[in-house]
Amino acid sequence: MKLSQSLSQTSKTVAHDADSVNAKLLTQAGFVKKEAAGVYSYLPFGRRVLAKIEETIREEMNAIGGQEVLMPALTPLENWKKTGRDDVPIAFKPTNKTVLGWSHEEIITPLAKQRIKSYRDLPFAAYQIQTKFRNEPRAKSGLMRGREFLMKDLYSFHANQADLAKYYDEVKAAYFRVFEKCGLESFLVKAGGGEFTENVSHEFQVLTEAGEDKILVCEKCKLAWNAELEIAKCEKCGDDLVEKKGSEVGNIFDLGAKYSDAFDLSFTSAEGKSEKVLMGCYGIGVSRLVATIAEVWHDEAGLLWPESVAPFQIHLISLGEDEEAEKIYRELSAKTEVLFDDRDCRAGEKFADADLIGIPLRVLVSKKTLEKGGVEIKKRNSEKVEIISTDKILQK
Amino acid sequence: MKLSQSLSQTSKTVAHDADSVNAKLLTQAGFVKKEAAGVYSYLPFGRRVLAKIEETIREEMNAIGGQEVLMPALTPLENWKKTGRDDVPIAFKPTNKTVLGWSHEEIITPLAKQRIKSYRDLPFAAYQIQTKFRNEPRAKSGLMRGREFLMKDLYSFHANQADLAKYYDEVKAAYFRVFEKCGLESFLVKAGGGEFTENVSHEFQVLTEAGEDKILVCEKCKLAWNAELEIAKCEKCGDDLVEKKGSEVGNIFDLGAKYSDAFDLSFTSAEGKSEKVLMGCYGIGVSRLVATIAEVWHDEAGLLWPESVAPFQIHLISLGEDEEAEKIYRELSAKTEVLFDDRDCRAGEKFADADLIGIPLRVLVSKKTLEKGGVEIKKRNSEKVEIISTDKILQK
Repeated sequence: MKLSQSLSQTSKTVAHDADSVNAKLLTQAGFVKKEAAGVYSYLPFGRRVLAKIEETIREEMNAIGGQEVLMPALTPLENWKKTGRDDVPIAFKPTNKTVLGWSHEEIITPLAKQRIKSYRDLPFAAYQIQTKFRNEPRAKSGLMRGREFLMKDLYSFHANQADLAKYYDEVKAAYFRVFEKCGLESFLVKAGGGEFTENVSHEFQVLTEAGEDKILVCEKCKLAWNAELEIAKCEKCGDDLVEKKGSEVGNIFDLGAKYSDAFDLSFTSAEGKSEKVLMGCYGIGVSRLVATIAEVWHDEAGLLWPESVAPFQIHLISLGEDEEAEKIYRELSAKTEVLFDDRDCRAGEKFADADLIGIPLRVLVSKKTLEKGGVEIKKRNSEKVEIISTDKILQK
Repeated sequence: MKLSQSLSQTSKTVAHDADSVNAKLLTQAGFVKKEAAGVYSYLPFGRRVLAKIEETIREEMNAIGGQEVLMPALTPLENWKKTGRDDVPIAFKPTNKTVLGWSHEEIITPLAKQRIKSYRDLPFAAYQIQTKFRNEPRAKSGLMRGREFLMKDLYSFHANQADLAKYYDEVKAAYFRVFEKCGLESFLVKAGGGEFTENVSHEFQVLTEAGEDKILVCEKCKLAWNAELEIAKCEKCGDDLVEKKGSEVGNIFDLGAKYSDAFDLSFTSAEGKSEKVLMGCYGIGVSRLVATIAEVWHDEAGLLWPESVAPFQIHLISLGEDEEAEKIYRELSAKTEVLFDDRDCRAGEKFADADLIGIPLRVLVSKKTLEKGGVEIKKRNSEKVEIISTDKILQK
């Protein structure tokens, strides 16, 4: 993509209402635009990051047998009456018969009911990457807590508790992999079920000062506890805990038979008895992940995207050598994702914008670099510059 | 995917409220589930078809310089007041300050305003594949006319009419390619602009009895006219026109300065004058495409997916040879998309379901085929069966 033609543009000024580092940097660097409190547009740079994260999640969900579906946002109010969740304050109701889905147990459970007859039809799991709506009274912290946001929600269906527990652990492992692939270290926190369940549930927390939650962390075991519990020692290794702030990027719930009871979701067991299906649900805040990565991966100059989720791999800068740079751009673009700063502006501005946008590798083409036999490369997270011949760029 | 474990399941009975061939077949074959009038869930088979269509559209939009973005569904009512579209009856309003986006001119125009200063910033084009909401009083014809549906909307920005006209033609050509790749022949129809513009606009119509529009068609020129115009001869070649019914799968609009006027979207020309930006907008009904393909590509036994949008390329059936079939399934799955009917049911049921689901190539493994030296293959749209050795399947 040529920066001169991109809808994503950097800005020298910080948005006056940016209430967090992620809102400030993501807006200023041209990734998002705030449309209303807790409502954002994703510009081309931001859309690319979303696509990377979505693909990472998809891979891991497919690997644990998740089947991708897409459920609607307009959901019948009558379904929510069956679970007693029709009057939660966060629900938008565009008509008096409709709720904008803020979770999808009320849709997936009847859907599963038309599929499940006997124990032979179990277990299975289905997920979607879909837009959720929650009328948050305090939409805040940029993309951390939105009124409209992207979520991955996975639901699993089981014949017995042992099978649910086994899958719950598989999801746990998959979640650690997702966050790790996104460049984040996550901590598992035992939590309350909230609106979802009275059974066991866990949160995945990423340490950041921008997080909304106070947690007590054992760095060694990668475990943490809600600070309200005032546990002093790690329950696994006995080490002292350290209080930190965390951003909840994922959560997993043992739903038990709560929703199966509400929708009479039963199956015939091998012994011929009718039994209730047990369910689990598992969420990842996709747009919150974008915000969390920005909070964890930045410095004073701007963003520092991990390669796996960067909108581009190479930020190509031309200083007065547009013809040569154009040639390099075409060659590199055939093999990887390149942002080409072809704008007619000062070198200092181009360097500052490269730091702000935060693409992993900067490649500079100028009269000086060409005289030295190639291009200058610099990693975003290092001060070291190096001249290499153009055909060696991709090896870096 | 193994059919025994899939959330997509075929049904022997037709949904009692299926109001069209697409609703009937897509529901019965396990592609979608109706959640409310004009609101559908996409099950795994349907989600896969959507993904194929989305990818086809993405390729063609990127090829004409479209930059992918993602705008929100929750949009500020004040934006719609500026264009006078705040009181259209189809708009859902979840709060008294919010409209669920039924189109996105009111969002993209202010977005473009923050990017466009001078003629040097023009032209550009941005698109999204996103969920639209329209409170249709008569949601009908299955996925044809929904209250919630997937749409691709592209917007372009230009300094003058000649540049807009040139891009408008590029989009026209891209649209013909999209529909052709989806297995559909489309006709260009000159149309009125409706809620969008008083300038020129065109529809792309696919001929089907399930279509809502009556059009007069010239098969030779691939042109058509709205039947209400009562034109007797093709305006291009002079041939007689034939009245047909069509489904509008795409539409393109010359918006002129309508939205630039509303949001004061101007640029400084090369001569230093302030001028209004000219805009075009271009829609494709993504979920309507699924419905239209089903209407065009089916026979009495079921669906007939074109290869390009089929949920799987191969439908593998095992008749009592599960071990051998499992081996073939693993080998083929590494190279292409396979649905494996591993259910414990009668041969007749498996064959009927293969026809209903409509995957292009059926591969049968049975004692008889193995004795004859391999598997039996049959194309969905042909009666011819053939025995080939398993290593030759992919060549087919």
